[in-house]
Amino acid sequence: MQQWAASALRAAKYGKGPDWVACIVRPAQASIPARTLPRGNMGFDLEDTIALLSSTPRSLHALLRDLPQAWTHANEGPKTWSPFDIVGHLIQGERTDWMPRARMILEHGENRAFDPFDRLAQERESHGKSLPELLDQFAQLRSENLHALRAMKLQPEDFDRRGRHPALGIVTLSQLLATWAIHDLTHLHQLSRVMGYQYREAVGPWSAYLGVLHCQGHGS
Amino acid sequence: MQQWAASALRAAKYGKGPDWVACIVRPAQASIPARTLPRGNMGFDLEDTIALLSSTPRSLHALLRDLPQAWTHANEGPKTWSPFDIVGHLIQGERTDWMPRARMILEHGENRAFDPFDRLAQERESHGKSLPELLDQFAQLRSENLHALRAMKLQPEDFDRRGRHPALGIVTLSQLLATWAIHDLTHLHQLSRVMGYQYREAVGPWSAYLGVLHCQGHGS
Repeated sequence: MQQWAASALRAAKYGKGPDWVACIVRPAQASIPARTLPRGNMGFDLEDTIALLSSTPRSLHALLRDLPQAWTHANEGPKTWSPFDIVGHLIQGERTDWMPRARMILEHGENRAFDPFDRLAQERESHGKSLPELLDQFAQLRSENLHALRAMKLQPEDFDRRGRHPALGIVTLSQLLATWAIHDLTHLHQLSRVMGYQYREAVGPWSAYLGVLHCQGHGS
Repeated sequence: MQQWAASALRAAKYGKGPDWVACIVRPAQASIPARTLPRGNMGFDLEDTIALLSSTPRSLHALLRDLPQAWTHANEGPKTWSPFDIVGHLIQGERTDWMPRARMILEHGENRAFDPFDRLAQERESHGKSLPELLDQFAQLRSENLHALRAMKLQPEDFDRRGRHPALGIVTLSQLLATWAIHDLTHLHQLSRVMGYQYREAVGPWSAYLGVLHCQGHGS
């Protein structure tokens, strides 16, 4: 790392940098491993979950629809995803993952493991389509799924109903629905990183202060 | 880390997990330090930059305006920021950072260092206001600033004009404008992490697969 970057990050870490640097740093928690962090402070709430799931399609629409392809179709290198790819992945989740799994929990409980995700279907689905078409399709499918979710008229006692994940084992309906919402946020997180990556050289020395340019994807 | 989490992440890393796990992992680059990654593939482009800067207010509006405060006013613990705080910070950037610094480069070049950020002003600014008020204020200020940026009628030769950052030293006008855009993405990245944090327990075992829950903020 160049000297200016190292000294700026060190100064920021100890609260001695320019004030605006601190916006990037989480002072108390920056070095604590994820598994030792305190509990998130929200319990599962169906309406809060639906509110977040409802906001994602319009947020992606607002963010991406009018951007040039330099932002929306660029990725981070071989075998990585562009914003266009991410929207295609979200569409496949609407088709084959979340609501089918919710129905499987209600109908089969722990007796039948969820079906795995079909990634080839995602590639077929997106092929030849424009990003606005994918955004519209995602919004339509999400709307239909949330309508179907509301039609289930779930009661609090349903949230603990159990299903079987092929790798994770026993999971509950509320965990599935919470994961549906946080999966949206994971891909919003990824999307901001992928777009930031395109300007990692253009920002020059400021790269030291821009947290999104230091994200490695948290895959390991 | 529990065994199922460790084994799932290990399987994902080597491409052997359930297919849908791989969406979280960047296969080729997950373990490469940021400073050795290849160059981003976009050079600075004024219109691309303005397009991204234009999309941020409407994206935040779409994402946040109708969410309950359980999502928008919760943070990650003491001295960390909620989505509400982040929007207040973006407003301060519009008031005191980006365009004032661009004007300083054009008027004073390297002769005068940029003024530091005033964080107290941000807290004063947000106090007593609602999130929709802050979102509207951010959109208004961003619109005015982009109008002023266009009125500068910058030419390619202007992009290399130099200014002086109080900590980073010499920077160029294009680096400042690129940073303005990537600073938006850094806070979108942060915002998705802060919201995800609220459900880190609610998702149960799926937390192992949700990259956003493993983000530490990249501050160090």
